[in-house]
Amino acid sequence: MSKIPIGILGATGVVGQRFIQMLEHHPWFEVAWLAASDRSEGKLYAEAAKWRLKTPIPANIAAMKVSPATPAGAPKVIFAALDASIAAEMEPRFADAGCAVVSNSSALRMQSDVPLVIPEVNSSHIKLIDIQAWRKKSGGYVVTNPNCSAIGLVLALAPLQQFGLETVMAVTMQAISGAGYPGVASLDILGNVIPFIRNEEEKMEEETRKLLGQLNGSKVIPGAFAMSAQCNRVAVEDGHTESVSVRLRTKPKREEIIAAWNSFRSEPQQLKLPSAPELPVVYLEASDRPQPRFDIDMGAGMTTAVGRLRPCGVLDWKFTVLSHNTIRGAAGAAVLNAELLKVKGYLA
Amino acid sequence: MSKIPIGILGATGVVGQRFIQMLEHHPWFEVAWLAASDRSEGKLYAEAAKWRLKTPIPANIAAMKVSPATPAGAPKVIFAALDASIAAEMEPRFADAGCAVVSNSSALRMQSDVPLVIPEVNSSHIKLIDIQAWRKKSGGYVVTNPNCSAIGLVLALAPLQQFGLETVMAVTMQAISGAGYPGVASLDILGNVIPFIRNEEEKMEEETRKLLGQLNGSKVIPGAFAMSAQCNRVAVEDGHTESVSVRLRTKPKREEIIAAWNSFRSEPQQLKLPSAPELPVVYLEASDRPQPRFDIDMGAGMTTAVGRLRPCGVLDWKFTVLSHNTIRGAAGAAVLNAELLKVKGYLA
Amino acid sequence: MSKIPIGILGATGVVGQRFIQMLEHHPWFEVAWLAASDRSEGKLYAEAAKWRLKTPIPANIAAMKVSPATPAGAPKVIFAALDASIAAEMEPRFADAGCAVVSNSSALRMQSDVPLVIPEVNSSHIKLIDIQAWRKKSGGYVVTNPNCSAIGLVLALAPLQQFGLETVMAVTMQAISGAGYPGVASLDILGNVIPFIRNEEEKMEEETRKLLGQLNGSKVIPGAFAMSAQCNRVAVEDGHTESVSVRLRTKPKREEIIAAWNSFRSEPQQLKLPSAPELPVVYLEASDRPQPRFDIDMGAGMTTAVGRLRPCGVLDWKFTVLSHNTIRGAAGAAVLNAELLKVKGYLA
Amino acid sequence: MSKIPIGILGATGVVGQRFIQMLEHHPWFEVAWLAASDRSEGKLYAEAAKWRLKTPIPANIAAMKVSPATPAGAPKVIFAALDASIAAEMEPRFADAGCAVVSNSSALRMQSDVPLVIPEVNSSHIKLIDIQAWRKKSGGYVVTNPNCSAIGLVLALAPLQQFGLETVMAVTMQAISGAGYPGVASLDILGNVIPFIRNEEEKMEEETRKLLGQLNGSKVIPGAFAMSAQCNRVAVEDGHTESVSVRLRTKPKREEIIAAWNSFRSEPQQLKLPSAPELPVVYLEASDRPQPRFDIDMGAGMTTAVGRLRPCGVLDWKFTVLSHNTIRGAAGAAVLNAELLKVKGYLA
Repeated sequence: MSKIPIGILGATGVVGQRFIQMLEHHPWFEVAWLAASDRSEGKLYAEAAKWRLKTPIPANIAAMKVSPATPAGAPKVIFAALDASIAAEMEPRFADAGCAVVSNSSALRMQSDVPLVIPEVNSSHIKLIDIQAWRKKSGGYVVTNPNCSAIGLVLALAPLQQFGLETVMAVTMQAISGAGYPGVASLDILGNVIPFIRNEEEKMEEETRKLLGQLNGSKVIPGAFAMSAQCNRVAVEDGHTESVSVRLRTKPKREEIIAAWNSFRSEPQQLKLPSAPELPVVYLEASDRPQPRFDIDMGAGMTTAVGRLRPCGVLDWKFTVLSHNTIRGAAGAAVLNAELLKVKGYLA
Repeated sequence: MSKIPIGILGATGVVGQRFIQMLEHHPWFEVAWLAASDRSEGKLYAEAAKWRLKTPIPANIAAMKVSPATPAGAPKVIFAALDASIAAEMEPRFADAGCAVVSNSSALRMQSDVPLVIPEVNSSHIKLIDIQAWRKKSGGYVVTNPNCSAIGLVLALAPLQQFGLETVMAVTMQAISGAGYPGVASLDILGNVIPFIRNEEEKMEEETRKLLGQLNGSKVIPGAFAMSAQCNRVAVEDGHTESVSVRLRTKPKREEIIAAWNSFRSEPQQLKLPSAPELPVVYLEASDRPQPRFDIDMGAGMTTAVGRLRPCGVLDWKFTVLSHNTIRGAAGAAVLNAELLKVKGYLA
Repeated sequence: MSKIPIGILGATGVVGQRFIQMLEHHPWFEVAWLAASDRSEGKLYAEAAKWRLKTPIPANIAAMKVSPATPAGAPKVIFAALDASIAAEMEPRFADAGCAVVSNSSALRMQSDVPLVIPEVNSSHIKLIDIQAWRKKSGGYVVTNPNCSAIGLVLALAPLQQFGLETVMAVTMQAISGAGYPGVASLDILGNVIPFIRNEEEKMEEETRKLLGQLNGSKVIPGAFAMSAQCNRVAVEDGHTESVSVRLRTKPKREEIIAAWNSFRSEPQQLKLPSAPELPVVYLEASDRPQPRFDIDMGAGMTTAVGRLRPCGVLDWKFTVLSHNTIRGAAGAAVLNAELLKVKGYLA
Repeated sequence: MSKIPIGILGATGVVGQRFIQMLEHHPWFEVAWLAASDRSEGKLYAEAAKWRLKTPIPANIAAMKVSPATPAGAPKVIFAALDASIAAEMEPRFADAGCAVVSNSSALRMQSDVPLVIPEVNSSHIKLIDIQAWRKKSGGYVVTNPNCSAIGLVLALAPLQQFGLETVMAVTMQAISGAGYPGVASLDILGNVIPFIRNEEEKMEEETRKLLGQLNGSKVIPGAFAMSAQCNRVAVEDGHTESVSVRLRTKPKREEIIAAWNSFRSEPQQLKLPSAPELPVVYLEASDRPQPRFDIDMGAGMTTAVGRLRPCGVLDWKFTVLSHNTIRGAAGAAVLNAELLKVKGYLA
């Protein structure tokens, strides 16, 4: 079986590079087309991109020419890693031209007919594709994955929904790679904490509710829990750490919560999707874990690590969540979405 | 007027060094005696201490001999910067011998007859001294200041008590200097977050309640609000940053809260205590402040900076607090306590 | 006596901010005019600049409007902190219009009629001003200070010239602030070393020779020693550390070299120029110093710290040099040059 | 074929952990015995060690009991990762008892009958084993690998010996993992450079000469080149970067030097030793490489990366060297030595 050709929009950025890295040996997909800003157009990828990963640029990618960012000549499946303002314009254009746009951008995430999906959590939401005007017109569509700060949290919360999730408070300590490249200036973050990331708290709160919401016909009814997020940037390369508190209606015991996390399996695991981690969530027993330096690569960066479950003096329980922001929180999220779409017949 | 001679217990550590730095030009106090662990005894201070501050060791201190850590020969006023386990044994011994022990240690903070004091917040609690057995026996006593993670929070909360403080949630991002020297190994924290500091959350919760409690005869009735703390270590040199949420009974407006912070003055300001900052709390309007790199030295490290006040989706308001952990959170706290004690006649 | 009004070109950058900070309480100069890129023109300074220093923006500066970067309306004395490509065009324009341009840029440093000056080292070179065409035409001129990596080295070498400097090898570990703001991306430098700074080695080598050269009529004869520099960027905020080896013709003893450094005084000290450090060079005896974290603020950032003098297996001696790159290596260098110019009658 | 059982002395330290990690899937060796300090004796390894690597502790190792550090019960092949002072006493004891001690310690490296070996560079030196008294008595012996700062340098110099190596100057920027755990305090190194590592410069200089020396009967005649090293610690997790200058007698061209590096193969490559990198040395063409963040894992941490070859104004050429200090510079060096010993019949 020949592989499905993939195009990448925003191929030179931090997330674009992760797409290339993750797709290098992918069993179903192969990168066939790369686009970036006008500045890069026509250059060889190796010249256009300032490669920031520890594995080398795949040789065939290095030698690929950067294409104009237009649907003409692009493959039918597009991974998009664009800034929101550009995505808002570009993604509809590709969908309109018949492309399946698997997007990591925030631009269309909250649009009512665009699925915002974590395959382990709300795979049924992909049915929203069927009501998209693009789909009806050209077969194209847009599917999105959440913000890098929301996805780890939601994977940790999903197994707790059975206990009646009533309230969520999360304070993040986010890695610099989440801001792209060049992103955060070293003079801003070395030995520092920045207690602000533009629009991040809003995204975390609304995306978490949409992801944990119910599809009701053509609408997602957002999760009914109360939610508050505070977002900070810290001097960490990869990995968002979050201090979380929750209130749960059925008052489960500590062991029940840990068991819920450790036993959590979902459609991607059952379908054995190539990028699905064996364990979407793992609880670490050590008193001082998870830590980005040591735990970020669990499940090849696709596993969410949880630790420090203990009673909360205000809500019921508090714990720490860690998730790889450019793998599970960006490129890996989109690749897993695409794998789900393929199995569900949406890449035919 | 000649200055009051001061002894420092734990003089070689990070906080001991701050004591020396802060007292170098103090109008009322002068360092006359230094003690540290047995290992240091008899050495010159300059040899015994690995000086870790940016200002040089004062010449007279460098040439001072480190004394044995016993009350014999010690001055009557002692600043104590000892590890809790050592303090638990040593501080009572000095109090018993008639010394005023102004302690930064956690050992006795929660003992019912030991005042835990921030002069701007609960100066009346120093009356507990009068019921201490040491005081009755020898005139000695112990007064403590709070943990470095509690003090900034409490200074930010004190002006909000007028609005009826009902609930407090705090997540900290604490500097490495809070762990002393050598303290945190660089292999543990470089590019990392450690979501655990032993006993820190317990201290923050119980100390905050005692500080914001009411002295009722010989007892402090702890503040009645609900409280939950989560403590993290980050790669910052000095300055604890905290993401805080609160619920307030009287539902003040945003401007009222900011005004409460900016107009907060208290006894140390009225008494013009030498180490009292002009402004104990300052609200910063910039959307991304306070930050340890830039704001930690406000009020010579004695001012608590607050920023990012915005509505909280779970409680009422959320905001960021920053406080210098080895100045306001340790040495400066004790010096200010001693200044209060002097004015109140307890150093006579 | 009223102060001399000063204009700053490039006022919003890292060095521009240092100019403002250093001139806030200057006895002779006062900032009267600020210019930056077109993007900033017309804005209030507080809005145009992303202030990156620990002391606050002086209130009068915050409220000053950013002027167009043209000589019309500018004061007669200009501190210039421009990128080299812009400086190459802009500085001659101001000199041509009659301004004294005291420049921190590399653009004109190596031009034969432009003095490259460290007042402690080669103050006589300012006479080159007299042969500048601008000077003859309008009274204006350009004087420059060296690159931030050269100045600390040259201050450490100047006292060794008496021993016959034959060979110099220097390897630098340079702070991120040397690259301006936003400058070095945090993803590039956190936990990393970058063994390359564009044009830096060339500048260090040629500027060191010009600074230690002899003025011969209208020409500077460069120092005759052999020189090699290797430049690295490290994750340090402020302070360039350099590992240096030298060969000296007269083979002095260790104590003679240390004495040469510690006793080094020069014209700025004799003239008591306001920004001149009491000690231009200080030798630190501790075996592991100087270090940027602890020694960078010596002499208010104007003193060069030297340490670890020991025999070199290839040349004669090796040692470590530390210098504050944005104070002594940039803004402070220019301010000291301006002070020298004033005393010498060039600001009349 | 069953695997050769291996014992590890100093198993809980940073290098001991690397031994365990590198041997987990080794085709010839398997860890059968672990010893550490008295404090660890009798504990399970998982409890005794503070595991600081990103891959998890192998399950069989985690459950292994830490043995007393005596030859009784130990396997016949010992990897030793001990502090020098302990190694000086312990390694002879194991050799005397008949063990092959493959040591990473500096204690015996410079002893005249102890081979100091990099298999690619001076494998013939292992014949010194035959003259060791231990060997004659019990069959035991000691073989050592160089200091982590010397090995990368020597691998870069070895291919240049054909050009007549006359002079070497090296300035290092060394990672914190080189100091073990807890090692460097975070308060010492965050945002800092420490221009001193005890005994490191001496080791680099003398080990480099011994490694590049000639075995002449029972003696190694040290390399005759002049050498000078300056050693600095920087805030990097893994990977020593070095700025090097050399003088070469035959004055090769730039392409010849690069070709010498890239074509360098030696006995470990010919013998296809399991831990031998395909390319011992690789020259990187990018103008700003090698960098520890991106290039440290080349050849699974066993390849030395070189870059920035350019003329030197004092010697002939200067360049940058990068080597993984706990793999090629410690555990991997010893494992490769053991592999060489096996093939040469010394583990029979």
